[in-house]
Amino acid sequence: MGAKYRKLAAHLAQVHNLTITYRILSWDQQVNMPPPGSVARADQIATVWRLRHELFASDTTARLLEEALREMRGAPFDSDEASLIRVARREYDAAVKQSSDFVARVAQAKNLATMIWAEARANNDFKAFQPALEELVYLKIEEAQEIGYTAHPYDALLEQVEPGMTTSEVKTIFDGHRPQLTALIAAIGKQANKVRDAPVHQHFEVGKQREFGLSISKAFGFDYNRGRLDISVHPFEIQFSRDDVRLTTRYDEDFLNPAFFGTLHETGHGLHAQGFGTSVEGTYLSDLDAASGALVESQSRMWENVVGRSRGFWNWAYPKLKGTFPAQFAKVDVDAFYRAINTVRPQFIRVEADEVTYNLHIILRFELELELLTGKLKVTDLPAAWNARFEQFFGIVPPTDKDGVLQDIHWSQGAFGYFPSYALGNLLSAQFFNKAVQDFPSIPEDISRGKFDTLLNWATTNLYQHGRKFTVDELVRRVAGKPIQWQPYVAYLEAKFNELY
Amino acid sequence: MGAKYRKLAAHLAQVHNLTITYRILSWDQQVNMPPPGSVARADQIATVWRLRHELFASDTTARLLEEALREMRGAPFDSDEASLIRVARREYDAAVKQSSDFVARVAQAKNLATMIWAEARANNDFKAFQPALEELVYLKIEEAQEIGYTAHPYDALLEQVEPGMTTSEVKTIFDGHRPQLTALIAAIGKQANKVRDAPVHQHFEVGKQREFGLSISKAFGFDYNRGRLDISVHPFEIQFSRDDVRLTTRYDEDFLNPAFFGTLHETGHGLHAQGFGTSVEGTYLSDLDAASGALVESQSRMWENVVGRSRGFWNWAYPKLKGTFPAQFAKVDVDAFYRAINTVRPQFIRVEADEVTYNLHIILRFELELELLTGKLKVTDLPAAWNARFEQFFGIVPPTDKDGVLQDIHWSQGAFGYFPSYALGNLLSAQFFNKAVQDFPSIPEDISRGKFDTLLNWATTNLYQHGRKFTVDELVRRVAGKPIQWQPYVAYLEAKFNELY
Repeated sequence: MGAKYRKLAAHLAQVHNLTITYRILSWDQQVNMPPPGSVARADQIATVWRLRHELFASDTTARLLEEALREMRGAPFDSDEASLIRVARREYDAAVKQSSDFVARVAQAKNLATMIWAEARANNDFKAFQPALEELVYLKIEEAQEIGYTAHPYDALLEQVEPGMTTSEVKTIFDGHRPQLTALIAAIGKQANKVRDAPVHQHFEVGKQREFGLSISKAFGFDYNRGRLDISVHPFEIQFSRDDVRLTTRYDEDFLNPAFFGTLHETGHGLHAQGFGTSVEGTYLSDLDAASGALVESQSRMWENVVGRSRGFWNWAYPKLKGTFPAQFAKVDVDAFYRAINTVRPQFIRVEADEVTYNLHIILRFELELELLTGKLKVTDLPAAWNARFEQFFGIVPPTDKDGVLQDIHWSQGAFGYFPSYALGNLLSAQFFNKAVQDFPSIPEDISRGKFDTLLNWATTNLYQHGRKFTVDELVRRVAGKPIQWQPYVAYLEAKFNELY
Repeated sequence: MGAKYRKLAAHLAQVHNLTITYRILSWDQQVNMPPPGSVARADQIATVWRLRHELFASDTTARLLEEALREMRGAPFDSDEASLIRVARREYDAAVKQSSDFVARVAQAKNLATMIWAEARANNDFKAFQPALEELVYLKIEEAQEIGYTAHPYDALLEQVEPGMTTSEVKTIFDGHRPQLTALIAAIGKQANKVRDAPVHQHFEVGKQREFGLSISKAFGFDYNRGRLDISVHPFEIQFSRDDVRLTTRYDEDFLNPAFFGTLHETGHGLHAQGFGTSVEGTYLSDLDAASGALVESQSRMWENVVGRSRGFWNWAYPKLKGTFPAQFAKVDVDAFYRAINTVRPQFIRVEADEVTYNLHIILRFELELELLTGKLKVTDLPAAWNARFEQFFGIVPPTDKDGVLQDIHWSQGAFGYFPSYALGNLLSAQFFNKAVQDFPSIPEDISRGKFDTLLNWATTNLYQHGRKFTVDELVRRVAGKPIQWQPYVAYLEAKFNELY
């Protein structure tokens, strides 16, 4: 490792420290901050984000990148050094196209919009959110113009979440499996009476929900000496370092699923974050939340669904759940419980959607985002457009905007272009799990005995340790020898739900 | 307000936002962070502090100050504008003498030393802390050299906490009242059997302690919609804005005082922080924790002691305390309780010291700091020096370093020069309270009826609203027409404790 490279790495570590600082401000805002603190917090965040941008999109970065590149020429593609230079160079090229004033303006607008959204959602009042959302859509269109694109403004935003991936590729994947999902949902609809979800809709004391969630999260391998689980309105995972990973969830006293599967979901992210290699820790590559969204979501969904909603897992876990809630499950056998948590039914809320309908929720958002960014759809017409499309996709209409267009935090955070990653993550969860089982055939049997380290070790070795060295395409080809495909996920769904229904 | 001034204010607001960001990182570290996160956190803090320094000690600041000063010439001394320029100019002149590398090095050394201190204290192992402390003493001596001083290196550090105040002035005040304190302690010692503190050494359930502390904190006027109370090893108050003020405390199940009076102490700081004027909010002047230490501590001590340990207060509060802990206080009347919480007795821990002995704990630290900074005392000899001086002051020797030299967090945070502010704050608490009563003679009677807003309004109008516009000398002269004096505090102590003993 040469002197020029070390200079670059030190400089980029400063940038990284500001990124993490921004995340700490954001975590605190969502978990601890008294609401009136939001005005000052928006200013603090804008300042940090502006300085981060100025430090990164600087002549210094350009020069250090240039010099390090020359010095490290010939370093293997997957070395830490070549990867750091490659990733930083790609992001520098995009960042340098945006002024620091613009970046600070976006950061501040996002922050305020998120607060406004939270209140608007609570009051089911889209009109209150509309001006903030219009401002963000406007800023995002401007951002796409500044960064530039060839085919579609959405490409410029998607590139930041899934480098190298185009709107057209996403559309092809979505169009490819949408008919299969619709057909599967229709077939299941005819057998809807085979499954009842009443067992998960009972009274469950919050303290015991937390205790049980933590016990499974620990069993999966999440290290609570290097992490925490808190409560927030919108659950999330955030990584301050591989040794400080924070998860949040929220509890519903009358519904087991949100907190429990939410905890497993965030645990999936958390295992990923804690599994970063020590050689990337503290560097520009050690930021899970700036990694490929599809990769990140593949791991939350793998642990939440492919593991956490499997029959094998519950053969092991159900006696423990019964121990925690003996009265509630006295007359429910493991088969009935397994069916209850795998109920397939069109409903309004994305984060509560089952594995079969989930990607349709994403395709809906993706299509609306495309229209918003080209100006084809105005924000003022968004609620009606949401509802019309929802009826077309699911045959039902959200009774309120709270159950519809206001449900997600993402747009208020300016995160246009992120939703596709959830659907791609679902697809990848099957691809990666299949490969893990191909490499270690004992995995399904291990899971049904409460032994999760075979899978975790596979994932750490093949995925987590790399930090964000690779794009999702680079990684899935490296691990599975193929690009992202929808076929394995549909096959997984068909096998699972044809048996269930 | 002119365009040049607005430019300066906007620039300094960015500096302020980084200061607050640093505080948020620090609060999180002390309240929430999993310990292994400390390595990355030290890096994050160093980066933020370095950038803050670079932004502040820059040519831009110099130029904007120059231009704003010219533009605002003639603005009244106590206007926001003149004050902002005056305070920023003073701090700029000191900051510009330190390199950003040095500042970042100090920030990182402090952060790591604090973690090492916490462990060393837990293990009663001074040797483990010694190298980190040596490094900090070395850095502080270097800092004093860089900033410069005429009489004593300590002046350069003191100037950052109490601008305009010299080591020699502090020494004069300390030497002035030390004999009075010693005489009072000796007189009390002869009557020690008149007071028993057994009532506060019983079992008190933590949840109820918290509930009672919160109720009094709210009654004083602290607004929990704009603040929080959490738990940390070393209790503190921190202000992120006037609308986001955080307090911490710690609970001892077998001793009522630490959490209760600790909560009142931090509440005093918190009232101060929440009372900042809206015209200074978000500006460079809106940072309580960078204000005069003596002013800041005068308010924690006024609410904790002058109010919270007064007979009048307990005439109102004691029935409520009895309601919370009926069994513990069934046989204790208000007079016995009042005596219990005002026990005077030499003991080892500063934060548990009574009002009479407290300042001696400070004078001891002040004298040791002076010797450390001139190199007269080596860190390796510090525990022995502490114990020898402790015996000389109090007639007893700490049984362990945990009860002695390792008890305070301050030196691990590089906060040499801060301790005097605690003693000065005690002196000022009496000066300010006397003036408040002179202006509003109903205050003592109001307090004994649980009405605290007369005092709070006086303090907000005369002290809190100004933010950090004034040095402590400027403020005490403005409010009380005199400099800091020790006589009012000694008179307060004599009146109170001659009656008690």
